[in-house]
Amino acid sequence: MSGVQGFDPRTGQPVGAPVPETSDAGVDALARAGEAAFPSWSSLPAVERAAVLDAVADALDASADSLVALADAETALGAPRLTGELKRTTNQLRLFGDVLREGSWVEATLDSANPDIIPPRPVLRRMLRPLGTVGVFAASNFPFAFSVAGGDTASALAAGCPVIVKAHPSHPGTSHETARIVESVVPAGVFGIVHGQQAGVALVKHPAVKAVGFTGSTTGGRALFDLASSRPDPIPFYGELGSVNPTVVLPDAAAARPEGFAAEFVGSLTLGVGQFCTNPGLLFAPESLVPALADAVSGAAGGPMLNERMSDAYRSGTEGLAASGLADLVASGSAPSEGWSVEPRLFRVPLSGFAENLEKLTEEHFGPAAIVVTYTDPAELEPVLPRLPGTLTGTVHAAESEHDSAGRVAEALRPVVGRLIFNGWPTGVAVAWGMHHGGPWPATTNPLHTSVGATSIRRWVAPVTYQAWPDDLLPAELRDGNPLGIPRRVDGVLGVH
Amino acid sequence: MSGVQGFDPRTGQPVGAPVPETSDAGVDALARAGEAAFPSWSSLPAVERAAVLDAVADALDASADSLVALADAETALGAPRLTGELKRTTNQLRLFGDVLREGSWVEATLDSANPDIIPPRPVLRRMLRPLGTVGVFAASNFPFAFSVAGGDTASALAAGCPVIVKAHPSHPGTSHETARIVESVVPAGVFGIVHGQQAGVALVKHPAVKAVGFTGSTTGGRALFDLASSRPDPIPFYGELGSVNPTVVLPDAAAARPEGFAAEFVGSLTLGVGQFCTNPGLLFAPESLVPALADAVSGAAGGPMLNERMSDAYRSGTEGLAASGLADLVASGSAPSEGWSVEPRLFRVPLSGFAENLEKLTEEHFGPAAIVVTYTDPAELEPVLPRLPGTLTGTVHAAESEHDSAGRVAEALRPVVGRLIFNGWPTGVAVAWGMHHGGPWPATTNPLHTSVGATSIRRWVAPVTYQAWPDDLLPAELRDGNPLGIPRRVDGVLGVH
Repeated sequence: MSGVQGFDPRTGQPVGAPVPETSDAGVDALARAGEAAFPSWSSLPAVERAAVLDAVADALDASADSLVALADAETALGAPRLTGELKRTTNQLRLFGDVLREGSWVEATLDSANPDIIPPRPVLRRMLRPLGTVGVFAASNFPFAFSVAGGDTASALAAGCPVIVKAHPSHPGTSHETARIVESVVPAGVFGIVHGQQAGVALVKHPAVKAVGFTGSTTGGRALFDLASSRPDPIPFYGELGSVNPTVVLPDAAAARPEGFAAEFVGSLTLGVGQFCTNPGLLFAPESLVPALADAVSGAAGGPMLNERMSDAYRSGTEGLAASGLADLVASGSAPSEGWSVEPRLFRVPLSGFAENLEKLTEEHFGPAAIVVTYTDPAELEPVLPRLPGTLTGTVHAAESEHDSAGRVAEALRPVVGRLIFNGWPTGVAVAWGMHHGGPWPATTNPLHTSVGATSIRRWVAPVTYQAWPDDLLPAELRDGNPLGIPRRVDGVLGVH
Repeated sequence: MSGVQGFDPRTGQPVGAPVPETSDAGVDALARAGEAAFPSWSSLPAVERAAVLDAVADALDASADSLVALADAETALGAPRLTGELKRTTNQLRLFGDVLREGSWVEATLDSANPDIIPPRPVLRRMLRPLGTVGVFAASNFPFAFSVAGGDTASALAAGCPVIVKAHPSHPGTSHETARIVESVVPAGVFGIVHGQQAGVALVKHPAVKAVGFTGSTTGGRALFDLASSRPDPIPFYGELGSVNPTVVLPDAAAARPEGFAAEFVGSLTLGVGQFCTNPGLLFAPESLVPALADAVSGAAGGPMLNERMSDAYRSGTEGLAASGLADLVASGSAPSEGWSVEPRLFRVPLSGFAENLEKLTEEHFGPAAIVVTYTDPAELEPVLPRLPGTLTGTVHAAESEHDSAGRVAEALRPVVGRLIFNGWPTGVAVAWGMHHGGPWPATTNPLHTSVGATSIRRWVAPVTYQAWPDDLLPAELRDGNPLGIPRRVDGVLGVH
């Protein structure tokens, strides 16, 4: 039987035994188990699902040491980062418990009858209900937070959907072990995991799978999006794909502290060997900042990337860019010589050259590479920024004196970004009510949705309206007297009533 | 130049002059005008957009007599229905004005900083912003309410999106005149109309169009959905397609008043010559109810359908069903002999035969045709109902004594329907906060969204999060002190704060 083998990126050597690939029959069995579990899981009172999420979080926390060691061997991301990431993952599970207990996520809406308007209105009660079994494609770069028990899984389980995860091949052992812990806590059929590319295809095509979440490359995401969209019954596919994350530093902000700014920029660029979807790959800066940026990149160390394919793609992509003559390679950092390590790279192009070759120069090179685009007057940026491909974040650095200019730059960026950051850095994504981790294509396949934060639960729920329905047959969320005490909209007015 | 010719369905004769088809250059000019108008229209304070919507409604109301006469000549739907439908359309525009003034549609969300959690949380402020120019495909069967100034247009304009409508060829004159009125009220570039099939294709493919709404057939909607999904940058496509609208009448409810029930059923079935997406095409009933149903259908009159294609499709579809032997034709009503008239038809099949040939017997025959599926025990329905194709509505008729059974039937229906109706009829769709007019494929292309009601505005907006953003550069909805006085979520808590 073929299997998925994990490797140590520091050495390129195998780690642990291969995990067997899941057969089509195996995928079918899990999807049918999800289908069978859906009625009871989805009708469990939300506060009881919240308790299950809390229990999953506790069980993962209890195994933190072994999970982190396993993940470090397969990803080389280091124990401190992985310890933090696992805590972020369990906090995320608990946030969704809070979301369920707060109760407004179902958008309970009650309208009284009005026979005197056109058209007449009967008694209407609307709420959101889960879609059914969800497929989740785990990412390479977050072995916990965007993986087996990550945000997609947490939000879908919270919504009341069974989940089947397609494990990422870069960390099969970590995925297997995380899945074992989740399975030990949730009811039978509510969670499953599959391994292997063919199993992923079978998952997206399975009639019992009602929606899919994905974090990964634009190429892989597009292929699966096309598969989901071309089903006899198309299903929602939420892919978080590529992102160049433009950062604009205005002249006064750049002049105020060039070395400090450059150090922060390179810190964000090289964090996790640049393997973040929010990695700042495109910097618009005055020419005068380039020496400090080049110095900082030259002094920075790279490290091992998560797998050989990504390491090769980074090298060939950045070497191709250097050879193309479209941008100048102005600095390279260092890297260990062993395993799948790569060094940071900084390219430079003037704004006019960037604008001429925008499509080519906004291809993402996943890893610690950036292009600095030099400009003279911030006003020159305004016609160029809206032409950028859709991206998760856009950042503006401005001095107190530059707010007007920052506002114009932000308005130019806004149509193409999901999150606007002021005097900060795009890496580090908070898990909160107000987070939006999304954006126009190719940042995601659907600009309405986020894969991080409380509202990511929306991806897995659809409305149902009960018209003139007897109170005793309504879900508790919609009954007279608001027995659950949740926020509801009654005749158009939001409140706890 | 080729043109789109309107016809009188009562006679099959041309009405008015043909309306010219829009060239690709014409579509491009409108899309570019929408793109140019987007920044100002989207940044207009919501209450000012509400005033524009009210003004559009007033202008349409002021032309009611001429619009209704024009629409009646092209659709044969009759002045009373069309007068009501126009009023529904203008009330719908005003509802979105109310939605904008209430303010919670932007989902303003404010999180304070918390550096002590993992991951740390910066100050985050999230709200929904419009996507850009929207394409709207008008429906044949609602020349006002799902057409040029219908729900898709009203909700997209409310959101801050310019709109380009693809007119339905069944009422080109009505569409042209309605568009002229809308254009006279809204700012330049915010609204446009195109005619002709090729113009519709160009609209869906245009890079400046960011989302599409559609109401129509499953075949046409699927073709356009595939076009939108296969763009280099896929865009959201919201299609409301076919629907069989199952109705279950439980034994005691059927026995209580067979003739009254049958009369109401046939009234809903033949309303508007059955040309509603909520037409009750599938009735699950005890065998004992069949004579009353057959009598009522035999005594019912049909009428002219909206166009020759639909009339032909209804005849060939129902005649093919009768010839197939899969269901028995048990009654036919009458119809005028002129124009594109069709008669109501009722078929009958026992539940076992229905379950065997479910796919074939749930094909929609748009028009006044229904299949009555006879059953003995309501429990027999429970495994069959979840196998129905996705549908806009599901209806249960139950006596007081039958609530338990009604609850089980409703749970079986719920996964495949968007709206559950108790002791009522699916035709007549209220425009309200609590309405959901949607459902799983093929009812719609996306089960998360509705094309009727306040929440239909969601289709045209996407979140943006401002991180650590200066208050003076934030949109008013997100500023300190809540200057607009709208409902917001602050640190997780909903309220006007």
